[in-house]
Amino acid sequence: MELKEILKPIEKDLQQVEMMLRESSRSEFGPLTLVIEEVIESGGKRIRPAMVMLAGRLFPQNEDHLLRLAVSVEMLHLATLIHDDLIDKANTRRGAPTINSKWDNKSTVLAGDYVWAKAAKIAAEVGNTNVLAIFAESVMVIVEGEIRQDYTGPSFTPNREEYYNRIYAKTASLFEGALKAAATLGEGTADEVRALGTYGRKLGMAFQIIDDVLDFVGTMAEVGKPVGNDLRQGVITLPAILYYEKHPSHPTLHSVASKNGHTPQELDEVIEEIRTSPELNVAQKEARELAMDAQRELAIFPRNTYRKALEELAEYVVERKK
Amino acid sequence: MELKEILKPIEKDLQQVEMMLRESSRSEFGPLTLVIEEVIESGGKRIRPAMVMLAGRLFPQNEDHLLRLAVSVEMLHLATLIHDDLIDKANTRRGAPTINSKWDNKSTVLAGDYVWAKAAKIAAEVGNTNVLAIFAESVMVIVEGEIRQDYTGPSFTPNREEYYNRIYAKTASLFEGALKAAATLGEGTADEVRALGTYGRKLGMAFQIIDDVLDFVGTMAEVGKPVGNDLRQGVITLPAILYYEKHPSHPTLHSVASKNGHTPQELDEVIEEIRTSPELNVAQKEARELAMDAQRELAIFPRNTYRKALEELAEYVVERKK
Repeated sequence: MELKEILKPIEKDLQQVEMMLRESSRSEFGPLTLVIEEVIESGGKRIRPAMVMLAGRLFPQNEDHLLRLAVSVEMLHLATLIHDDLIDKANTRRGAPTINSKWDNKSTVLAGDYVWAKAAKIAAEVGNTNVLAIFAESVMVIVEGEIRQDYTGPSFTPNREEYYNRIYAKTASLFEGALKAAATLGEGTADEVRALGTYGRKLGMAFQIIDDVLDFVGTMAEVGKPVGNDLRQGVITLPAILYYEKHPSHPTLHSVASKNGHTPQELDEVIEEIRTSPELNVAQKEARELAMDAQRELAIFPRNTYRKALEELAEYVVERKK
Repeated sequence: MELKEILKPIEKDLQQVEMMLRESSRSEFGPLTLVIEEVIESGGKRIRPAMVMLAGRLFPQNEDHLLRLAVSVEMLHLATLIHDDLIDKANTRRGAPTINSKWDNKSTVLAGDYVWAKAAKIAAEVGNTNVLAIFAESVMVIVEGEIRQDYTGPSFTPNREEYYNRIYAKTASLFEGALKAAATLGEGTADEVRALGTYGRKLGMAFQIIDDVLDFVGTMAEVGKPVGNDLRQGVITLPAILYYEKHPSHPTLHSVASKNGHTPQELDEVIEEIRTSPELNVAQKEARELAMDAQRELAIFPRNTYRKALEELAEYVVERKK
């Protein structure tokens, strides 16, 4: 199913979100506005605001507040991308040049800070301090996860638990926080807040696993970066971990994990091995199970258009090809 | 008058603030906790939380919320310091090594982000979204000011207006926001919020001018950096601007402003000229006038211990020797 079709019930909402995002890029200082506009336009799928709108619509609630929540979640996500690109020294994201490739470190740090502050400002306009606390908590988890990864470096032995912690911090915590915030704003019961939070967390884990699988299968044109990019950067994701579990004495994987020497050719070879191994399917299957778990959390809500769309979204996330 | 004496009426509050700051440095990840603790302990005068407590105590209000506001303002200030030190590539601040000198760029950016999020979390606990909106706005002004400065570079002709804009963004906007937030939290009238905001802004301007004056007079031991450090970094502050207005064709000042070549010796010479010129007093006088303006804003409040302390604080800020 196409994403567009799934999101039909909130088509107008998402147009509104897009307009508000563009409005919120405006700063007093022209060059900063331009740079934020570019980040917003380089876009992505807007999965996060879509989830917030769908989950929020399960409850009768203030439409304007819900829209602001959705915009704020996306701004928060964009702020993390700006600092990530700086940290990873990435020059492109989804084929477009990063801020980091055009501005110096200093301005990139600051542009990220500015977008954080903007996200906080919009979140404050939602008028619910619980929502803000959930957000701030998500940011802390994201940032702490990144620091932890940087500080400890990739472990010598690629290890699943570390991987799950890492992708929870990187992706699933904001999915979880966004959905809890939507339910909190809609004055959902404790059970409803918990169920949507779990839906978000499981779907976030699935989303990141699929991203990591696609890193091995996508072509440069499709994903905007070379195949096996994560491994090239020394980041060991689920497909590589599964492959390593099968071939525990693989010399190249070992050297990548421990940051010892290996030739570009050896790296190309192991990426090709993983890419054509059954482990990619095993990883995808794991993501599918998480998505099904996520869907099951929705059972406590009445069957309606929005619940149906959230169910379909879970499928989309694990079946998507890019 | 000693700062300690002025702040006597809120001595217990400030001990509480200190304890809460230390508590809030705790993260799930040990090394991050250590680093944040060091930033908190490298300390400074805690002028911002002191102002918040004094202004807040002009109103009958929830003590716990007011304390959290004070802590959150200081955390916000510390977060800007972390990113500033990274940006300025500073190795020490007040004689202590910066995070930046011990961690890599990546972790420093992230540590700053973490402290931002923590500040937002504590601000959310204050339970007033207006307060949060004021904060987010201050952060945006601070960050935008820094980006603007970085982007345009120091102007060829040192110019007062640019200087005032810069120190408003850098220092006075957070003073202003913090005091508006304290008054808003205390459910002050529009006039009271405005008066305290203006007090904060004027005092913030005075505070920064004095910092810039002390940069010329302090010794290494007193201020923890070499005399004339700002000018050495190419940052033209009020004393240099005033001196330049008197000596518009001074070759070294010209070359510093336009980032052209000048020898270390020429720089030492011009710093010595400014340091012994009457312009330092002119700058201090300007700060004194701002402090008096700030004091006048307090006239609408009943005379009590807290108003008196705010008045004395304004004097302290401009008479301090470090």
